Amino acid sequence: MEDVDVRVDRRELEAFCRSVFEHGGMSPGDAGVTAEVLVSADAYGIPSHGVGRLRRYVSGLETGLMLSRESGVTLMETPASLVIDARGAMGPPVSVRVMGRVIEKAREAGAAFGAVRNSNHFGIAGYYARMALAEDMLGIAMTNTAALGVPTFGREAFFGTNPIAFAAPSDTEDPFVLDMSTTVVTRGKVEVYERRGGELPEGWAVDHTGKSARDPGSLLAGMQERLGGGILPLGGLDTLLGGHKGYGLAVMVDILCALLSGGPFGRDVYDTPESSARVSHFFGAIRIDRFRDPGEFRADMDRMLRELRACPPAEGRDRVWFAGLPEAEHERETGRRGVPLSSKTWSMLRELAAETGVELPQKSL
Amino acid sequence: MEDVDVRVDRRELEAFCRSVFEHGGMSPGDAGVTAEVLVSADAYGIPSHGVGRLRRYVSGLETGLMLSRESGVTLMETPASLVIDARGAMGPPVSVRVMGRVIEKAREAGAAFGAVRNSNHFGIAGYYARMALAEDMLGIAMTNTAALGVPTFGREAFFGTNPIAFAAPSDTEDPFVLDMSTTVVTRGKVEVYERRGGELPEGWAVDHTGKSARDPGSLLAGMQERLGGGILPLGGLDTLLGGHKGYGLAVMVDILCALLSGGPFGRDVYDTPESSARVSHFFGAIRIDRFRDPGEFRADMDRMLRELRACPPAEGRDRVWFAGLPEAEHERETGRRGVPLSSKTWSMLRELAAETGVELPQKSL
Repeated sequence: MEDVDVRVDRRELEAFCRSVFEHGGMSPGDAGVTAEVLVSADAYGIPSHGVGRLRRYVSGLETGLMLSRESGVTLMETPASLVIDARGAMGPPVSVRVMGRVIEKAREAGAAFGAVRNSNHFGIAGYYARMALAEDMLGIAMTNTAALGVPTFGREAFFGTNPIAFAAPSDTEDPFVLDMSTTVVTRGKVEVYERRGGELPEGWAVDHTGKSARDPGSLLAGMQERLGGGILPLGGLDTLLGGHKGYGLAVMVDILCALLSGGPFGRDVYDTPESSARVSHFFGAIRIDRFRDPGEFRADMDRMLRELRACPPAEGRDRVWFAGLPEAEHERETGRRGVPLSSKTWSMLRELAAETGVELPQKSL
Repeated sequence: MEDVDVRVDRRELEAFCRSVFEHGGMSPGDAGVTAEVLVSADAYGIPSHGVGRLRRYVSGLETGLMLSRESGVTLMETPASLVIDARGAMGPPVSVRVMGRVIEKAREAGAAFGAVRNSNHFGIAGYYARMALAEDMLGIAMTNTAALGVPTFGREAFFGTNPIAFAAPSDTEDPFVLDMSTTVVTRGKVEVYERRGGELPEGWAVDHTGKSARDPGSLLAGMQERLGGGILPLGGLDTLLGGHKGYGLAVMVDILCALLSGGPFGRDVYDTPESSARVSHFFGAIRIDRFRDPGEFRADMDRMLRELRACPPAEGRDRVWFAGLPEAEHERETGRRGVPLSSKTWSMLRELAAETGVELPQKSL
């Protein structure tokens, strides 16, 4: 968690990002979509994937690692499937378009899937899974990412944080939206420990010998130089707590994203100053009414989610929540009080405003 | 791991189980399928789901908790979906039939899914996911199970071990077959600790207060009586190692299995002496050639799996493997040397032979 130093109205923040992206050469439509995806991460309380990344996106546009006017080409299309070569396009606009087409196909086919290769960072996977909710569909989104995760019993990175997002609609409860990396943590969490100067928890990472790594600085340096070591899969070290399961999930995500689309996979996915990681994505939508009356489904979802919220908490805990609930609550608070930004992110936005001539949004805090 | 005391030829063991099931009232076809599913678990090295469960299946048939001649009814069917009420049928035959129909539908539709409610224990999820491999499809299988898993920050069981299986075909490498519970461990592993008298590892379970539980006996007793406590989701206690992710996956499986089929979910899934847990399943198949040439896909799979096998192992470890490799190796050894059985399982088979008059298979060890 970063400290909250500034709050900005959500729409104003989106407008600022949109203008910055337009200044970087993107079309108004693509710039707007990308702004919305980035700001939604901050609104949901996931600042690691929010406007804190704006500088990286702008740099990507400047260096040509992310192509402002590229929208990709269709490699294969059937009534229930779609394969896109993004050819280095910005991740969010190509992803919103593909998920939109997948949903459209699912309307006819009942279920449809799309795979995208040669893309760039697409923000939060949950954004795309959520797109299915209003259609009474289950939504699925995944991406591979630059390799930083070490296979069980290994000592070199082979897979990325490879998130899985899954969304299911409800009626009165907030929707169930799972959006999880399949590694124990992401690189960002290790970086937080480095800044604060603490030891990493046991079970997060291994060094170049494959033993538990506790020093965030040397871990990050080793990962940066590809000298070995990396973050552990969900389940941690070895198999005692199920590390082989997180490892299996990470490979599954790579198969669905990169093997289905023909993109780079495994350790071939990495960034250099001269090239982006050329990540691959996978999107899916499944119509609920091809199984069951959607109203009955949503009513059962409400009951399940209410029961989960009503679970007695462990001693010392306030409550039990479900995936998507903290994000929904954070978003409501954001609506009232503005989107929270760290002072570091705010400084970066000020710099970008000065560089581009785009007016900085008003602080609401 | 149970000790190996006896080895039996795989086909002979299947024939024995088939005859025992027929003696219990099942049709020859259903008995054969159920025998094959059970024995495959032992062949893959997963004895917790193998013929060690034969007594439970036979008892289920005797008491009528599992119906020998029930094959379920179709509640909904479309070109890409199928919903079945199993009406208390045996899990394996209804599951093999549904996965078979899902694969058939996927041949036309490209991707298809089936949900089943009111079923019984279906053995290993991986069996059904593997059925897609020969068709150049991706295979998916899941089930909910009796509630024993505690939500993050909670102290009472709400979800089952809720396994996820995913299979992808390769050419010369063994196929990638992930088959994992979404809890840290299953009840069987806790029972092993109880028999051996050791303390449970930290991160496996919590007691009725939601604090870490280390004593297997009192944990199992509390779970049995539904007094609170239970096994933790993959990722363990709280959120530090990602326990909320395993929790989210477990709920996702419940949604796909039970919410889509209209079956019982969450804590309503449990066994009593008078009723089975009425579990729900979810099956899926996705044609690879709707995305990419399957030959190219399998060649890339081979490369990925070879690269994983070639990953340098951690100090003190022999090698890196991938999901499905240990099972394939175990199956090959089984082919040469027979299926390994513990003395406890062998005694039970002897008793069943005496009770049913079915000839016990020859020991090959």
